[in-house]
Amino acid sequence: MYTGSIEGLIEIFESFPGIGRKSAERMAFHVLEHMSPEETHRMAEKIIETKSNICFCESCQNLTDVSPCKICSSLKRDRSTICVVESPKDVSTIENTNEYNGLYHVLHGALSPMDNITPDDLKINELLLRLTDGTVKEVIMATNPTVVGTATAVYISKLLAPFDVVVTRIAHGIPIGSDLEYADKITLIKAIEGRQEMK
Amino acid sequence: MYTGSIEGLIEIFESFPGIGRKSAERMAFHVLEHMSPEETHRMAEKIIETKSNICFCESCQNLTDVSPCKICSSLKRDRSTICVVESPKDVSTIENTNEYNGLYHVLHGALSPMDNITPDDLKINELLLRLTDGTVKEVIMATNPTVVGTATAVYISKLLAPFDVVVTRIAHGIPIGSDLEYADKITLIKAIEGRQEMK
Repeated sequence: MYTGSIEGLIEIFESFPGIGRKSAERMAFHVLEHMSPEETHRMAEKIIETKSNICFCESCQNLTDVSPCKICSSLKRDRSTICVVESPKDVSTIENTNEYNGLYHVLHGALSPMDNITPDDLKINELLLRLTDGTVKEVIMATNPTVVGTATAVYISKLLAPFDVVVTRIAHGIPIGSDLEYADKITLIKAIEGRQEMK
Repeated sequence: MYTGSIEGLIEIFESFPGIGRKSAERMAFHVLEHMSPEETHRMAEKIIETKSNICFCESCQNLTDVSPCKICSSLKRDRSTICVVESPKDVSTIENTNEYNGLYHVLHGALSPMDNITPDDLKINELLLRLTDGTVKEVIMATNPTVVGTATAVYISKLLAPFDVVVTRIAHGIPIGSDLEYADKITLIKAIEGRQEMK
């Protein structure tokens, strides 16, 4: 039971995904007890500023402050490969491996009829448009290995059939450093199905 | 690896206590992907507004938007008892029991020489001032049963010796519904020391 406006501040933080009541209270009291009015003002301004500066890259649809984004406009990237992911976070995750040198395409979600997410809600048309000039030779479907992620990959791969591109799916299997004992049944089946010749 | 301004937004959220990198990323992408510019603006304005409206109650030092706060100005509260707590959250926790009907005093921390928190950093003088008119008969020390909380309670109880007030400490013991087996040694010692006659 807090004064109305403190309660309101707690509710702001509680509205974020993954933030429960206790965390929201800690965050609100951090603002009220430990931040100066100037710091609070700077923080709020920074949130507004970032929100208004960030847009979708006109090509890959990733979040960026310049469009086309750094990756799309880089001359060092392989323009013949597009890796399709669900969210901007996935781009960052793959970039952190320092192994992939192609381009990306961010769908901003996965098809989920239960949640009313249809193909029109995703950046699928934007992907098809990128394939019209014939530069792209391979599309790697790197949506999550969940029910919705896999369904999205299958749906898009069918849409891509008329184009002259190879459509691939990232491999599923036992994670490196893990133990067979702890693998779930479906992962294990996928690992056996996807077995490759040892050279 | 995100664009500079996205990284900046993540760092804002990461600067809150208890918010790690992953949570901060989720929060930042919630703003960027799921909130409208209007919602973002309203949220930021609300944070600034709350911060500027909230002040310390001139009497109990709790955070409030009117001073004196609702509790201090209530005619229904017992003005002869003050419960001393470390933080505004503790007031809320005790209020939720609906059992305590006295006033509060919020110290805003606990004495901790290691962290350079000295008596001058706490609202101790403000507490002493409240005892000068003789209305208060009992001061309940409800600081946390930690090393610093207990040290603070002991320090303040010594300062209160010249005043005509009874200084009490909340009881420590086995939590209700718990099991002796799981009680730590010190709690068990406190529970035995604090034993009371059954009537």
